[in-house]
Amino acid sequence: MAASSAAPWKPLLLDALRLNTHVRHSSYFQLATVGANGRPSNRTVVFRGFPDGSDRIQIHTDSRCRKIEEIRHCPYGEVCWYFADSWEQFRISGKIEIVDGLNTDPLKLQLREKNWFSSSLKSRTQYLGPGPGLPHLSEEQHGEPLLDQSTGPTAAFCLLLLDPEQVDYLNLKSNKRVMFVSRQNGASNHCWVEEEVNP
Amino acid sequence: MAASSAAPWKPLLLDALRLNTHVRHSSYFQLATVGANGRPSNRTVVFRGFPDGSDRIQIHTDSRCRKIEEIRHCPYGEVCWYFADSWEQFRISGKIEIVDGLNTDPLKLQLREKNWFSSSLKSRTQYLGPGPGLPHLSEEQHGEPLLDQSTGPTAAFCLLLLDPEQVDYLNLKSNKRVMFVSRQNGASNHCWVEEEVNP
Repeated sequence: MAASSAAPWKPLLLDALRLNTHVRHSSYFQLATVGANGRPSNRTVVFRGFPDGSDRIQIHTDSRCRKIEEIRHCPYGEVCWYFADSWEQFRISGKIEIVDGLNTDPLKLQLREKNWFSSSLKSRTQYLGPGPGLPHLSEEQHGEPLLDQSTGPTAAFCLLLLDPEQVDYLNLKSNKRVMFVSRQNGASNHCWVEEEVNP
Repeated sequence: MAASSAAPWKPLLLDALRLNTHVRHSSYFQLATVGANGRPSNRTVVFRGFPDGSDRIQIHTDSRCRKIEEIRHCPYGEVCWYFADSWEQFRISGKIEIVDGLNTDPLKLQLREKNWFSSSLKSRTQYLGPGPGLPHLSEEQHGEPLLDQSTGPTAAFCLLLLDPEQVDYLNLKSNKRVMFVSRQNGASNHCWVEEEVNP
């Protein structure tokens, strides 16, 4: 067992991303949450990077999605990220923070805005469409929404920040599995403990 | 909204499997469950087909895995199956049954045995290895376990049967999303209701 203050799983994840860039959808992963009925939910989302100097995982979503309701009810998630080419799996669990337009922290609002402008105009336009998961009405009734390049985040645009507490890394090529756990170290510090476990 | 007794999502799933056979790991999907602490868990598992004439999804696992404990605590799961080449996602949620060697139903035991012999000798050998997730001891202490072709399922071999209750189908190429829900129809019958919803 070894301990460190920098996240020791992060270089492994960055390496996997680099090795798999040519694989279609290597930035897609599955995010599990728990519904108000206590049952699990699972869907594919897109990795939107780490905010500067942090280990938190950024995800974009629509505030009208069921997952927002679920995260408000149980603010924990587990990411399962499988890299098809390098045969590596990262299971990343932690607390999820929802950053919407009503957030009172100016730095968080700034981060949300940065995320909005970093995504494509096509992606942004989706947040103007009809509510996801609601019965679909014929296209004639909607029309194609128009969005200006300079328009800031719309009300439906949410940034999710998943703060990793545990990372279960599995390499199916080397048949090696390592468990990384974040341990509180005083009031505001934490350190990572890692241990090799059976695959 | 349309209703039918045959599972209307199954032809879509079989088509996706056929269209994506050339994609590495198209038979891998992510299974979310809920832990005893109420938090979500998520991991990659392999699709092992449907038992004859049924819509239940077969998965193999080790009885010593944490997911068995989790499923005993909350017997519901959600599969998230993303097909990278056809841009289709199936979110399949339902109740999970654990079929281990202690099962009292002879037909279920027979199905477990059939699943055991249908998997490769290499896969079977894994169930003789040390307990998954436990601290890894050096290889010298284990040695390579030996397993005969004709040996039946070992105690650690578990068959999971997920019985779909809801399937959320999303096609990112056509931007179409359909929700399929199973409705009880008398004591032993059920029918599928489908509705197009906003993606």
